[in-house]
Amino acid sequence: LQLFTCNSNPGLAREIADHIGVPLGDAEVGKFSDGEIHVKLDESVRGSDVYVIQSTCHPVNQHLMELLVMVDALKRASARTINVVIPYYGYARQDRKTRARDPITAKLVANLIETAGADRVITMDLHANQIQGFFDIPVDHLLGVPILADYFIKKQLDDVVVVSPDHGGVIRARKLAERLEAPIAIIDKRRPEPNVAEVMNIVGDVRGKKAIIIDDIIDTAGTITLAANALLEQGAKEVYACCTHPVFSGPAIERIQQANIKEMVVTNTIPLPEEKQLDKIKVLSVASLIGEAI
Amino acid sequence: LQLFTCNSNPGLAREIADHIGVPLGDAEVGKFSDGEIHVKLDESVRGSDVYVIQSTCHPVNQHLMELLVMVDALKRASARTINVVIPYYGYARQDRKTRARDPITAKLVANLIETAGADRVITMDLHANQIQGFFDIPVDHLLGVPILADYFIKKQLDDVVVVSPDHGGVIRARKLAERLEAPIAIIDKRRPEPNVAEVMNIVGDVRGKKAIIIDDIIDTAGTITLAANALLEQGAKEVYACCTHPVFSGPAIERIQQANIKEMVVTNTIPLPEEKQLDKIKVLSVASLIGEAI
Ligand SMILES: Nc1ncnc2c1ncn2[C@@H]1O[C@H](COP(=O)(O)O)[C@@H](O)[C@H]1O
Ligand SMILES: Nc1ncnc2c1ncn2[C@@H]1O[C@H](COP(=O)(O)O)[C@@H](O)[C@H]1O
Repeated sequence: LQLFTCNSNPGLAREIADHIGVPLGDAEVGKFSDGEIHVKLDESVRGSDVYVIQSTCHPVNQHLMELLVMVDALKRASARTINVVIPYYGYARQDRKTRARDPITAKLVANLIETAGADRVITMDLHANQIQGFFDIPVDHLLGVPILADYFIKKQLDDVVVVSPDHGGVIRARKLAERLEAPIAIIDKRRPEPNVAEVMNIVGDVRGKKAIIIDDIIDTAGTITLAANALLEQGAKEVYACCTHPVFSGPAIERIQQANIKEMVVTNTIPLPEEKQLDKIKVLSVASLIGEAI
Repeated sequence: LQLFTCNSNPGLAREIADHIGVPLGDAEVGKFSDGEIHVKLDESVRGSDVYVIQSTCHPVNQHLMELLVMVDALKRASARTINVVIPYYGYARQDRKTRARDPITAKLVANLIETAGADRVITMDLHANQIQGFFDIPVDHLLGVPILADYFIKKQLDDVVVVSPDHGGVIRARKLAERLEAPIAIIDKRRPEPNVAEVMNIVGDVRGKKAIIIDDIIDTAGTITLAANALLEQGAKEVYACCTHPVFSGPAIERIQQANIKEMVVTNTIPLPEEKQLDKIKVLSVASLIGEAI
């Protein structure tokens, strides 16, 4: 077994390496002067089962290409199996045609990864479970809920309600709720008329409770901020938020800073650069979860 | 026949559209807040022969992904054939293993383009002709030499010698020389010992002549600058340089500015941003050449 990393998440890769007790392989993933990626494997991989760790987070196209070129290099160097570990799978939200003539980029990316030569994929909290079926190779699909649940269990919050920010996230919310032995509530976004702001109706009882909103991805943090306000208006006592993938693009950090959210709990599938680290953001590691899957 | 462009070279795309008298199709190639590419086709392409114009120049990974997502969208929108026009094919220099365990990214990219759903490729001056064979779909391979030759013929330079900057470029140099009815010379780079600077030997007679160096790609302009000096030392009267693909990365522009090169003639397969436009750089258009091929 050999473990390699590209450049998106070297910190997590090192943690995973420590967890399974195998050092990270000697390889260089760099750029030529014109921005083209070069990969240099500095040790033999012939006949070996190789794992490559790479989240396809921002800058997504570069990180995806690093992974593809790495897989190509491993294939041509006669690795026995190439297992790609993609803690955060970018382009997952483009998983269906929402309008005529939309691309389905999540499927395209699956095809690209197979074409490059991957034999197996390990990933976490795909935006839609259907993306597993976009691959013709085995996909191990890990969930962040147990890690998030353990954290909230340790906090010993009483009178909790777990909130799904939309109907698509109910199953995830229910999983967290079961572990916390708490009820769930659902935010039912409705746009009364075109070009009128959405109204956030809350289905379920949140009055006097500590609400924990759970989502798979938090991107610009717009939904989560509005949801927190709606919950407080409906009488929730405190609002926590959690997710597996902290994409945190655009105005996200400013919004989280200002939002009526007591704590934002995320995992390290996507690394947070220094300027995105706030006191109210707590980062949990998925290293041991991924280590077990390897 | 429908014509679309992504974002790498919209100027050339418009020129090609004008040349063949077909307007550019209505489509949007943009980015979500997190940097993921989205493509929106605003007109039907059902049953149509579609051409997409996109150079995979800097930022190469983004431009490549724009092309792939566009092809995916066209395929799912039932275009009859998808013809990708790649005036500059990035990653072409990674076309073979130069060391053990190298990737062959030029082949990977060919596979990615086919996987996305392209039916035919039109491209120009591939760094190696072998890259045509990396595809299992038809490849039209256009050459910049006739365009460069016409320019120099119009200049009516007398007593010219065409210079290949390395042994790999001799055939290209000979093609230009034939059109200019000029002899050729070859620069024979040798590294006398490891870690000693290369020596530029000139094979052929350049004394008293006007030398035109021709290459496929000029990237950091290091080779061309040294070659120009070597030619002048050997008694060349003036040095011109030309290439199809002005990559011009890193120190290129500064070097060209300072080099003993009278004029640098390039094509618009890669657009030159304002800060890379110098008086001594002359840009010729490949629009009619590509227009004819479409
Ligand atoms: N990177 C992205 N950022 C924002 N929206 C996206 C992104 N990728 C896809 N989408 C859009 O998100 C919607 C799907 O999200 P959802 O309804 O939550 O599954 C579709 O309308 C997509 O066009
Ligand atoms: N984008 C690039 N920039 C600089 N060198 C490259 C690039 N891509 C590949 N190479 C290297 O260029 C060499 C091949 O160039 P050539 O010998 O001219 O065919 C190989 O050693 C490659 O590793």
